[in-house]
Amino acid sequence: MPASRPSPSYSLTLRIEYQNQVGMLGRVTSVIGTEGGDIGAIDIVKTTRETITRDITFSARDEEHAQTIIAAVRAIDGIDIVHLSDRTFLLHLGGKLEISSKVPLKTRDDLSMAYVPGVARIARAIAEDPNDVFNLTIKRNTVAVISDGSELLNLGNVGPEAALPVMESKALLLKEFAGVDAFPLCLDVANVDEFVAAVKAIAPGFGAIHLEDIAGPNCFEIERKLGEVLEIPVFHNDQHGTAIVVLAALINSLKITTKAPSDLRVVINGATAAGVATARLLFTYGVRDVILCDETGALHAGREDLNGVLQSLAQDTNPRAITAGVGEALAGADVFLGFGHGGNIDPQFVFAMNESPIVFSVAHPRPEIDPEAIKDVARVIATGRSDFPNQLNNMLCFPGFFRGLLDARAKSVNNEMKLAAAHAIADVIGRDELHEDYVIPSVFDRRVAKAVADAVRAAAQQTGVARRTTRGAF
Amino acid sequence: MPASRPSPSYSLTLRIEYQNQVGMLGRVTSVIGTEGGDIGAIDIVKTTRETITRDITFSARDEEHAQTIIAAVRAIDGIDIVHLSDRTFLLHLGGKLEISSKVPLKTRDDLSMAYVPGVARIARAIAEDPNDVFNLTIKRNTVAVISDGSELLNLGNVGPEAALPVMESKALLLKEFAGVDAFPLCLDVANVDEFVAAVKAIAPGFGAIHLEDIAGPNCFEIERKLGEVLEIPVFHNDQHGTAIVVLAALINSLKITTKAPSDLRVVINGATAAGVATARLLFTYGVRDVILCDETGALHAGREDLNGVLQSLAQDTNPRAITAGVGEALAGADVFLGFGHGGNIDPQFVFAMNESPIVFSVAHPRPEIDPEAIKDVARVIATGRSDFPNQLNNMLCFPGFFRGLLDARAKSVNNEMKLAAAHAIADVIGRDELHEDYVIPSVFDRRVAKAVADAVRAAAQQTGVARRTTRGAF
Repeated sequence: MPASRPSPSYSLTLRIEYQNQVGMLGRVTSVIGTEGGDIGAIDIVKTTRETITRDITFSARDEEHAQTIIAAVRAIDGIDIVHLSDRTFLLHLGGKLEISSKVPLKTRDDLSMAYVPGVARIARAIAEDPNDVFNLTIKRNTVAVISDGSELLNLGNVGPEAALPVMESKALLLKEFAGVDAFPLCLDVANVDEFVAAVKAIAPGFGAIHLEDIAGPNCFEIERKLGEVLEIPVFHNDQHGTAIVVLAALINSLKITTKAPSDLRVVINGATAAGVATARLLFTYGVRDVILCDETGALHAGREDLNGVLQSLAQDTNPRAITAGVGEALAGADVFLGFGHGGNIDPQFVFAMNESPIVFSVAHPRPEIDPEAIKDVARVIATGRSDFPNQLNNMLCFPGFFRGLLDARAKSVNNEMKLAAAHAIADVIGRDELHEDYVIPSVFDRRVAKAVADAVRAAAQQTGVARRTTRGAF
Repeated sequence: MPASRPSPSYSLTLRIEYQNQVGMLGRVTSVIGTEGGDIGAIDIVKTTRETITRDITFSARDEEHAQTIIAAVRAIDGIDIVHLSDRTFLLHLGGKLEISSKVPLKTRDDLSMAYVPGVARIARAIAEDPNDVFNLTIKRNTVAVISDGSELLNLGNVGPEAALPVMESKALLLKEFAGVDAFPLCLDVANVDEFVAAVKAIAPGFGAIHLEDIAGPNCFEIERKLGEVLEIPVFHNDQHGTAIVVLAALINSLKITTKAPSDLRVVINGATAAGVATARLLFTYGVRDVILCDETGALHAGREDLNGVLQSLAQDTNPRAITAGVGEALAGADVFLGFGHGGNIDPQFVFAMNESPIVFSVAHPRPEIDPEAIKDVARVIATGRSDFPNQLNNMLCFPGFFRGLLDARAKSVNNEMKLAAAHAIADVIGRDELHEDYVIPSVFDRRVAKAVADAVRAAAQQTGVARRTTRGAF
């Protein structure tokens, strides 16, 4: 299993003071390097005749590693640590979003137009024609990023407060990559009905709803119920964002292995939100033989321990009625898609797959199947990690997807949009660029969000769920 | 009753084209002036040998007046109106707020710190110590501006969509005057319990709740119930913002008339949100004799047509058990405070008041008592209008009030804060500046919000409802 490497997410700045003599700085940098820290900037803060004060910034692998390095520096004779700051915590201090005005408010005339009495004219216009809310308010460019923190990243059910910094980050990405104004709402709710009621209540001011980090099976019911009561689109990113990116990578991988979707055998490990949504999206794409596995083994019609969503999927999947676990399911399979919680699948199973195996391990940070162990047998390997080729990250999808929904003023989300988005992401990589190590674009490829937005807008218009039928952004 | 004057809130830009000959522009400006329009900028758009195109911007009194002026211009021989734009609608197009990032997101390192994996460290820190949500997220500077649009300005119950542009404007003011990040949430809810449930659900991400434009008597119950279930402050601006500004003006007026609160007779017309809250705040200030009147007349203990809130007030007010209407109540009174819906009170009643009458007509745009008609008898006159002295506008209160709540990380709102805010507003006007026409500062006086914020923060700290006990803003 590949060890994680020093990351800027564990980046610290040490302020050290020491006697102004030759060789001291070298001792410090040498200790940090020996301990495996990755040194960045070294700045001088102050010098006197006797002493020198410097800021040394370095990255560590994780919290424990950072503490080890600090202890090693502290142990150097003559080095005094006067301050320690954690760059990640500093970055998040006070939150990452700001709400600002697009109009001036400096003079009495400004006030008369932007506030009373001018705004009363705008309110009256909307009261007379409710569609004007899309023209005369923030609704047309604004998305609510909503979570209850019930399954946050890989931290589990940590609640709405702990979810807030993550939802702020989603809002940042929506703005940075797609110009969407997104606001985080972290819900204190006890069950599905309270969740649905809260989102229904706040919906009038938003053009779309982005659901995130909600535990299954509630997430399925919440999305379904909201879809029924709202006239704006609802998109659960853990499900569909991930499924669309996985499908995009699969589409490109199939160009390399020249297999057809209808001939594929696909094994999905992890009956999670993403696993379930991916299975369904694969059907839409034309895949017929999908086996979905959870901790117990393959889902099949005879299982009596499944919730409603999984019961339904057990009917639609596993046409050969496999009843064993992932290992048996993988024998002869073409594709492995892992959405479990980290490295626990024997790489030997991959050796029993069909020729040109496609292996995507989305689990983060530890892939379920060690990429190093299968590099000679698997044809295409993709992971959730940024330090391997082919990073599967739903940020390739959701900013552009919401841009497209807003541009169309869509009323709902449908499969046509999801397929269109997957093809759009795949097609960013030209036929001549395609390679086993390049089946999915970089998360920083600025063409992606635009391509996804155009595809989603067009699909919304073609399927009759767009309020806005002309082309182009605002 | 003073007619309203041309206002920038009805400001139009006419693009006209005419034969390039002497005197044509003069005819147009002369017609606009004759019709009562107020001409602003005149710009040349294009000239050819034969024709000239100009943009003429003018203000009108209202929609009808604007249409009259346009028709008059159109009737001029040789003038062609090629385009007409309404500056107020243009200003509101696409909404007035923007959500932006405070952190960079351009490189892989940025992403590692602001998004995964860095943000997982922040989420874990908050999960371990929930108080950290105030340090590491937007909560500490963010207010939800919430309405159901059930009583919007003077438009009545127009619903959440029509309320959105107004709540955006409130958010603008919070940012411009007090640096508060405020986000509008317009609620689609059917009753008090749904309203309360929705606000409780979204509360984790906010440092305070600003309620606005909610009809009585629901507004009272909503505020009370939210105060019970939330650990962040809830402030209904229509009630307390207005009451605090009215009290501030009264405090300064009493310095002029040298009367003591305990000796005052006060008549409040309008058992509205503001009327009720003002009555209560006056008790806190030391006023004993308050008569509250609604359309039926004075509230008294014998009235059987009152809801719970008004029944309770009928017990606490009207110590002399007046059963007639505003006119009788005003005989011998020192102060009239009008929160009704426009000019319907006979100015003659003011002549029967005690010496040095104080008359505040907050109703907007038509004051209940014509200021012109009482200018020789009333000692201090204040209105809700910007074109008379002493404008009573709750924007003098709420931005600074929320700044103070956030700076203290207050858990609730109390009377001590409200009194402190009223005194702070009043004290912005020095003793030597005080004058019958200057009992309340200008809405553009930048000292006000700072003074209110400091007073509210200090009051929160003194009354033990502050989480943050040190001084100063963030």
